[in-house]
Amino acid sequence: MIMNDHNLLSTFALLTRTPAVLNALLRDLPDTWTLRNEGEGTWTAFDVVGHLIHGERTDWMPRARLLLQYGESRAFEPFDRLAQMRESQGKSLGQLLDKFADLRAANLAELRALNLRHEDLERRGLHPALGPVTLSQLLATWASHDLTHLHQISRIMAHQYREAVGPWAAYLGVMQCAGHSS
Amino acid sequence: MIMNDHNLLSTFALLTRTPAVLNALLRDLPDTWTLRNEGEGTWTAFDVVGHLIHGERTDWMPRARLLLQYGESRAFEPFDRLAQMRESQGKSLGQLLDKFADLRAANLAELRALNLRHEDLERRGLHPALGPVTLSQLLATWASHDLTHLHQISRIMAHQYREAVGPWAAYLGVMQCAGHSS
Repeated sequence: MIMNDHNLLSTFALLTRTPAVLNALLRDLPDTWTLRNEGEGTWTAFDVVGHLIHGERTDWMPRARLLLQYGESRAFEPFDRLAQMRESQGKSLGQLLDKFADLRAANLAELRALNLRHEDLERRGLHPALGPVTLSQLLATWASHDLTHLHQISRIMAHQYREAVGPWAAYLGVMQCAGHSS
Repeated sequence: MIMNDHNLLSTFALLTRTPAVLNALLRDLPDTWTLRNEGEGTWTAFDVVGHLIHGERTDWMPRARLLLQYGESRAFEPFDRLAQMRESQGKSLGQLLDKFADLRAANLAELRALNLRHEDLERRGLHPALGPVTLSQLLATWASHDLTHLHQISRIMAHQYREAVGPWAAYLGVMQCAGHSS
């Protein structure tokens, strides 16, 4: 990895800390916050952590490897956005948080070991729906995907207090969020 | 505090951990993430932490004390939503995170020491704009206010990567968020 590439350093800094953020926010938190969703067909915070695990297993680094090996000649595997509904069954939130932290650490170690050069970041792969994408875009999306789900988790949690806050709901922006980060 | 009151326990659990969440997310993170906003007149993550500090100083516990002492006979002081623009000047993000953690811990110690009974939670105070509100609503709003700003911080940060993610922006819900949590 080029340590003077600012964007990549920022991406790495964020990816490294997300497991600790989710741990600080969710571990041992009452079920009120972690096992309730925003209504039928929506996710709980528990579901979101399972989704992040599935991403570590099948999305980000596997796509980076495919891109570096095959370029645009082989499209990425489509990502299964519902896999966690099977894979998280019977697990505790603590187990999921541990698993996410382990997988993320292993993936970042692998990313570091690639010793990416600046020109590697401009190499292209083929997204099955979006078309050509660069490695730089893939890595920036990995970090932004963490943020979209932190945004979602805070919204899911706030939803549980919609009644409890009474008239203050009008002042709390998160309670106006239409759920575009699900 | 009534330890079998589920709502209050949940509120307490969240309020207790927010400083650690912000610490895990923001401390020593590159300035790209923490010192940039979403455009003119919007806040940086640094500004948000300053706003949370001001809330600890002037909003939540001062209002709870006023409510318990004067009921609806004296309205809460209006909250200054821009105070942090003065108060954070010259401080580092690390200093703000430390200050927030200290103030929150002191406020929660004071809240615990009130030994609130169930009936206390239904006592009312007077919000200068919203009218009568209960102590229960005030405390639930304190926790939800943490979440609205976690929601906002994740959105501010994601905004910095809007270009970097290329075509993936269409898939990242946080990048569609209209800024209702500012």
